[in-house]
Amino acid sequence: MDLKITGGTVVTASETFRADLAVDRGRIVDIGRRITAPADRTIPAKGCYLLPGAIDVHTHLDMPFGGTTSADDFETGTRAAAFGGTTCLIDFAIQSKGQSLTAAVETWRRKAEGKACIDYGFHVAVTEATDQVIDELADLVRLGVTSFKVFLAYKGALMIDDGSFFKILRRARQVRALTMLHAENGDIIDVLVSEARAAKLKEPIYHALTRPEECEAEATARAIRLAEMAQAPLYVVHLSCFGALEEVKFARDAGLPILAETCLQYLLLDIERYREPRFGGAKYVMSPPLRHKSNWPVLWDALAGGDLQVVSTDHCPFNFKGQKDLGKKDFAAIPNGAPGIENRLQLIFHEGVNKKRISLNRMVDLLATSPARIFGLAPRKGSLAIGADADVVVFDPKAPFTISARSNHMNVDYTPYEGFKGRGRVVTVLSRGKVIVDGRKFLGLPGAGQFIKRKRFSQ
Amino acid sequence: MDLKITGGTVVTASETFRADLAVDRGRIVDIGRRITAPADRTIPAKGCYLLPGAIDVHTHLDMPFGGTTSADDFETGTRAAAFGGTTCLIDFAIQSKGQSLTAAVETWRRKAEGKACIDYGFHVAVTEATDQVIDELADLVRLGVTSFKVFLAYKGALMIDDGSFFKILRRARQVRALTMLHAENGDIIDVLVSEARAAKLKEPIYHALTRPEECEAEATARAIRLAEMAQAPLYVVHLSCFGALEEVKFARDAGLPILAETCLQYLLLDIERYREPRFGGAKYVMSPPLRHKSNWPVLWDALAGGDLQVVSTDHCPFNFKGQKDLGKKDFAAIPNGAPGIENRLQLIFHEGVNKKRISLNRMVDLLATSPARIFGLAPRKGSLAIGADADVVVFDPKAPFTISARSNHMNVDYTPYEGFKGRGRVVTVLSRGKVIVDGRKFLGLPGAGQFIKRKRFSQ
Amino acid sequence: MDLKITGGTVVTASETFRADLAVDRGRIVDIGRRITAPADRTIPAKGCYLLPGAIDVHTHLDMPFGGTTSADDFETGTRAAAFGGTTCLIDFAIQSKGQSLTAAVETWRRKAEGKACIDYGFHVAVTEATDQVIDELADLVRLGVTSFKVFLAYKGALMIDDGSFFKILRRARQVRALTMLHAENGDIIDVLVSEARAAKLKEPIYHALTRPEECEAEATARAIRLAEMAQAPLYVVHLSCFGALEEVKFARDAGLPILAETCLQYLLLDIERYREPRFGGAKYVMSPPLRHKSNWPVLWDALAGGDLQVVSTDHCPFNFKGQKDLGKKDFAAIPNGAPGIENRLQLIFHEGVNKKRISLNRMVDLLATSPARIFGLAPRKGSLAIGADADVVVFDPKAPFTISARSNHMNVDYTPYEGFKGRGRVVTVLSRGKVIVDGRKFLGLPGAGQFIKRKRFSQ
Amino acid sequence: MDLKITGGTVVTASETFRADLAVDRGRIVDIGRRITAPADRTIPAKGCYLLPGAIDVHTHLDMPFGGTTSADDFETGTRAAAFGGTTCLIDFAIQSKGQSLTAAVETWRRKAEGKACIDYGFHVAVTEATDQVIDELADLVRLGVTSFKVFLAYKGALMIDDGSFFKILRRARQVRALTMLHAENGDIIDVLVSEARAAKLKEPIYHALTRPEECEAEATARAIRLAEMAQAPLYVVHLSCFGALEEVKFARDAGLPILAETCLQYLLLDIERYREPRFGGAKYVMSPPLRHKSNWPVLWDALAGGDLQVVSTDHCPFNFKGQKDLGKKDFAAIPNGAPGIENRLQLIFHEGVNKKRISLNRMVDLLATSPARIFGLAPRKGSLAIGADADVVVFDPKAPFTISARSNHMNVDYTPYEGFKGRGRVVTVLSRGKVIVDGRKFLGLPGAGQFIKRKRFSQ
Repeated sequence: MDLKITGGTVVTASETFRADLAVDRGRIVDIGRRITAPADRTIPAKGCYLLPGAIDVHTHLDMPFGGTTSADDFETGTRAAAFGGTTCLIDFAIQSKGQSLTAAVETWRRKAEGKACIDYGFHVAVTEATDQVIDELADLVRLGVTSFKVFLAYKGALMIDDGSFFKILRRARQVRALTMLHAENGDIIDVLVSEARAAKLKEPIYHALTRPEECEAEATARAIRLAEMAQAPLYVVHLSCFGALEEVKFARDAGLPILAETCLQYLLLDIERYREPRFGGAKYVMSPPLRHKSNWPVLWDALAGGDLQVVSTDHCPFNFKGQKDLGKKDFAAIPNGAPGIENRLQLIFHEGVNKKRISLNRMVDLLATSPARIFGLAPRKGSLAIGADADVVVFDPKAPFTISARSNHMNVDYTPYEGFKGRGRVVTVLSRGKVIVDGRKFLGLPGAGQFIKRKRFSQ
Repeated sequence: MDLKITGGTVVTASETFRADLAVDRGRIVDIGRRITAPADRTIPAKGCYLLPGAIDVHTHLDMPFGGTTSADDFETGTRAAAFGGTTCLIDFAIQSKGQSLTAAVETWRRKAEGKACIDYGFHVAVTEATDQVIDELADLVRLGVTSFKVFLAYKGALMIDDGSFFKILRRARQVRALTMLHAENGDIIDVLVSEARAAKLKEPIYHALTRPEECEAEATARAIRLAEMAQAPLYVVHLSCFGALEEVKFARDAGLPILAETCLQYLLLDIERYREPRFGGAKYVMSPPLRHKSNWPVLWDALAGGDLQVVSTDHCPFNFKGQKDLGKKDFAAIPNGAPGIENRLQLIFHEGVNKKRISLNRMVDLLATSPARIFGLAPRKGSLAIGADADVVVFDPKAPFTISARSNHMNVDYTPYEGFKGRGRVVTVLSRGKVIVDGRKFLGLPGAGQFIKRKRFSQ
Repeated sequence: MDLKITGGTVVTASETFRADLAVDRGRIVDIGRRITAPADRTIPAKGCYLLPGAIDVHTHLDMPFGGTTSADDFETGTRAAAFGGTTCLIDFAIQSKGQSLTAAVETWRRKAEGKACIDYGFHVAVTEATDQVIDELADLVRLGVTSFKVFLAYKGALMIDDGSFFKILRRARQVRALTMLHAENGDIIDVLVSEARAAKLKEPIYHALTRPEECEAEATARAIRLAEMAQAPLYVVHLSCFGALEEVKFARDAGLPILAETCLQYLLLDIERYREPRFGGAKYVMSPPLRHKSNWPVLWDALAGGDLQVVSTDHCPFNFKGQKDLGKKDFAAIPNGAPGIENRLQLIFHEGVNKKRISLNRMVDLLATSPARIFGLAPRKGSLAIGADADVVVFDPKAPFTISARSNHMNVDYTPYEGFKGRGRVVTVLSRGKVIVDGRKFLGLPGAGQFIKRKRFSQ
Repeated sequence: MDLKITGGTVVTASETFRADLAVDRGRIVDIGRRITAPADRTIPAKGCYLLPGAIDVHTHLDMPFGGTTSADDFETGTRAAAFGGTTCLIDFAIQSKGQSLTAAVETWRRKAEGKACIDYGFHVAVTEATDQVIDELADLVRLGVTSFKVFLAYKGALMIDDGSFFKILRRARQVRALTMLHAENGDIIDVLVSEARAAKLKEPIYHALTRPEECEAEATARAIRLAEMAQAPLYVVHLSCFGALEEVKFARDAGLPILAETCLQYLLLDIERYREPRFGGAKYVMSPPLRHKSNWPVLWDALAGGDLQVVSTDHCPFNFKGQKDLGKKDFAAIPNGAPGIENRLQLIFHEGVNKKRISLNRMVDLLATSPARIFGLAPRKGSLAIGADADVVVFDPKAPFTISARSNHMNVDYTPYEGFKGRGRVVTVLSRGKVIVDGRKFLGLPGAGQFIKRKRFSQ
């Protein structure tokens, strides 16, 4: 036996119990009250939780955006992820205009290979749905890329029309893939942004004011209807507000296969952030924007109750100096995105579990088990189960933390969570049985992370 | 006193009572139990109802469509309308690409002048919403054109995008005009039509199958949200199905100023009509298409209960021979539209009032009082009130009728209601105090109809 | 011709127009631009509205309650009603335990005969639904008593159980009568009141706190379901809050024949009134109690939009001195009820029409036309129509008013509306063609009011 | 180590994996890929699932009803349960009129002691809610009886009024217990039953026709409102139809702590059963009655989607001969109840999992994990977790079965599922580490089952 972790408390999506856990050849091989067989290495975990490694299904590493590139590449990004207890991520390969989807995936695989310290997969973002592109979807599924994303926002750039979206939904259903959606009405936003710019409104707050909740709710409602017509499942990414959630709830009550995630930031940060002085609001420029804080309890309730199934990060960092300031004179030129990949587990644990908004088991479900099941990573990932990949996090629920850009490992000069305090720290992280984080030391290796061929979608 | 009608039963939107009615200089001047003052002419109306002249707010006379022109011009169309008890209509001036809205209205006024036998107004259909066009909306209101229509269907032709629609809604609100909407998702329909054509599906039934109810429900839902964002009122034209109605109901329950009409055909004809042999289905090709008949009781209930406020016709006739047959080899080439302007009152009376689906007073409301109030024709039109225009219909509720293209007066070689029987006939029609229909004789004059400057919208 | 009113503006539920109005033998005989025929009396009405006399379908004159009797009898109550523009009322004959319904009606007819100054009818309140009582319902309908009320509140007194209610609903449907409902859950209120008393809580505010909105919403929901099972129409009296309204809306959207009224007080007074010092809160003790003022706009919107059809008063006055003070040491001993019969028209006009919450025509509908139609008084009552009873109100919309118990005519020592100011005064009132109010003079006669046999309910 | 089970597939509410499982001193001590340590006994489980023992939270063993007693006592009932894979049940101690709740529990404990072959707990059914009884609720919780049931049906027998129900809800919240509800409107049912009897309608079908779905939906709606007022959680037992489910869904969407179970029979049997000839319908007389089969997919969807959390049996058997026939001349005299305790796991597995209506993990959740968590049995019961009671079922998913009263072990002469076929059989059952079922042999002992003190309710 390669390794055992002793004296901890195993937490799954449905159970919590004291047990030792043994690992051999990268897999979990034993969970027992007391594992007495000898192991090459023993990690004591008294007082700690053993959690399945978290999975982040929404990241943008090394991504070109508005003339710059997100600040974390697959090396720095996955290292930071590991420090935060995330042992697998799914990034987005984005089709350039005129490019084939396979080529887009190839481009992104090259970004990741030799760099990623944890396992990864890809969604593909379809920005041009020609007949040829539609035909390629089946090929992607065979490659293990079993989810396709579309944007109803970013008019003139990533946005596709309803007809293209509808074609993708239908084809995705046929090849048993999952369609993912960025739900904002790009047409309306385009009008509002143009007007704001014409009126010489430059500050970051106008980013939020030109992308109101109604635009998200409308696009969500429309997409659900199109999915219903196409008889296809749909996964709504970064749902941020009550209006959009109501649409998802309504659809789920009607028995439709509509899934949705929210992100860390929509649970903890609010629209007032855009008013931070000295262009500070730019740090929070992302789409959808941060919302009024009345949405927070609504989103937490939906996480607890099951109407939202995943918390991801939409990690897409840009430095405040040198990147965010591209938009100093024009909010619309601020690169969209913010860092988060490293802080998800600790913040969801403290704000969610410690504050009794969700149970510990539900947290595991939201961060690991459900993402794995929805995106075809199960049963290898997402569970502490015999035979699963030994992606394990030893987590000390009592250890205090204070978040700061200085102590974070992401390659970006700020964090939106600066000064957030709480209890709950990642102590040790295993990736397929290898210790990659040991306290404050990183023991992982660039390139050790593998591309994971994901399974087809099944409800 | 010019004229009196004696011994009839006056019907308004709220009352029904026996009375004589007197007319002088084109206006109603007296309603009394027995009007003894002498009149130049006396029309006995024993056993008959006196109704305010019906108003048809949705017609397309002399309209170019797909390389042909609707078969009724303002002379034949308004004559047929009068025979059917309609004494005022509002037609659509349609902006050509590159044309100003004022020019479009001017074009349509020329079509009507010297021809119309009854009073008329215009909505303007905006097909290109440049900044200049948006600026023109205020001018139109000053001209008495206080309602603007947009299409979310007919991609590549009349359809505008959500951003343009939103701009129009907001500007309409500012100038106190009403935005009207053709609610179908043109993008999705475009996909479905293209696929049907690619599959060599040619028959008229494919017109209906490529424009499913979901497309109407989705566009209705979207438009309501946009109107809510714009804080603007919205009038949904030719609502045809349960799904769209649910959206309207939901909005109205939330207190939003959403109004909607259905048309005669959606209450009485169903999708099975498209299967008539020998290309007969083409007679019913219109958009939205006829629906499953399960929608009929739902629409009648909404008319009775107030969630629908108007019944119009969307009269847009094309001859079966020479026009409809343009699409003999391709359902998508069949000119869209069907005749109805002449048969609305009798059919709504028989199918609605005689069959106890709506009350007699509600019929008056739906065909006259509400259209007049909504579209700024009140108090001149829509009511039997002292001082109102003497647009009066003497209606015999017992007289039997059988509808036939031969006996109709519309300039078209068929009627979708061929063979419909019932009781209830227009006996005499007054337009501003002049008898224009006297039994089977038409006494009206081309050009006698006047353009009516309509008032601004107020709830 | 007995009388004409000249120069006024006639207002009906659907029209507003300048006209003279002529009356002969108690009926309206002519409405004309200018009635030149001579009349015995001419009432000039320049600048005034002519309205159909208002109808109050919810009053309790001369009613025993908790050991005392409501302070207005049929003489003082109907005189005050007339001063307020109300020309017809429907009071409740309440079955005593062991009494037949016919006997109850007989008791109430004796209270009214020789006293009532305006026309009146009766509902009967069923408090014991034995088989015999159920059998009597058909008899009542033949007597012109075509509506039956039940209480789901006042446990141990007026309250009946669900089974009895259900039997009444079904029988009412068979005999085409309308079931009316006091919707509060008496069981729960009983628990809350007992607890408050046990805790020595004595002040009037506890009346409101022990009858929360939820109790009304629940009973409304339950009653609607029972009505649906019984396939019977239902009229919810004195609906006071959002929760109950939502149930009514939901039912109406589903096409169920559910009708509802609210009362003056729920539109204008709020729960804070119960905190008036020196036992002042007792003046507002009624059931349901006054609610939080957030309910006001919700109720006004429902009146405007059609989900509520009637505004009544639930007039049930008790003197502050000598009656209300029976409950000085125990809120539960305060007689339930408050005066309002005289102030409805002026307050609804000022707060509703002048403040643009409802249109003038809708006011007429809510106060006259709809009550008449719903309760079988039409076409004699509720409309300014040729042939209708000449119950006419000349109303000056510009005249200012200030409400005060001193200037009111009701036989009670306070008014809940003390100090309310506005514009709109009743100038002249006709009851079946007789002038009964002429400015500040009362010309009516006790006993001149007639019992009106009402028609059966029809939708 | 006392025992190990080797080669099986462990199934929990969230995972499925191949593993060995080891038991020592009644607890699960190890779950490993291959457990090599020696054990006193080894049970090979190749090709089989290892499931946590199922929990049945709704049974009526040895229960007096209408002059007779349910046919299974705690010995025969728990033996049959064990054969069906159920290793724990919660029965109802029913308060007799005048009896204290503690006495009721004592009565039922005596029925169970020395007889029960598996572990058990009790709910207490409150039929008379005097102040004294309300005070006792806290005592019960201390005894480990942490759920209280009320009936809104069975008028004149078990039914309590809304006030009593409300008091129980509030007290239950204070002592952190869960209130359970039989939701049918007993008043209405009483009317309908009386009428049917008066009309000499005797056949079993009238049992169903006098207890329509609306009665269940109404009571469910009412109870949810009362729970909301009391801010208390509520568990709706034997939910059988769409209407009631809609109320539960609506409440859950609003974030209320409303839980609900359905029972086996409502998923698989329909109202047509009552028409079985020769009084056969009596076999299905239970309350609520079987419903139209259109409810089946609705209930399955709610089980899959989370709106229903538990499947129980409401096992309450009466022999067809000698018990059911008490109602031969009067459907209302047929004892209410049917057997099911033995067939739940196999039928839910075959009809649910094999037919892809729910996942295997969800089945475990519905039959074991959720019932344990909701009713305070976790973490001892409901999971295959280290440290949990070794209540384990070895289940062969391929083995065929045909249900028949002859081969069943329940002490009753029929089964409603006679002839149901499928795949999935219980092979071996462990109760706290002891093998109590070994193929067709029963090795358990009367009295070996222990009373389980349950924890307080927590969400």
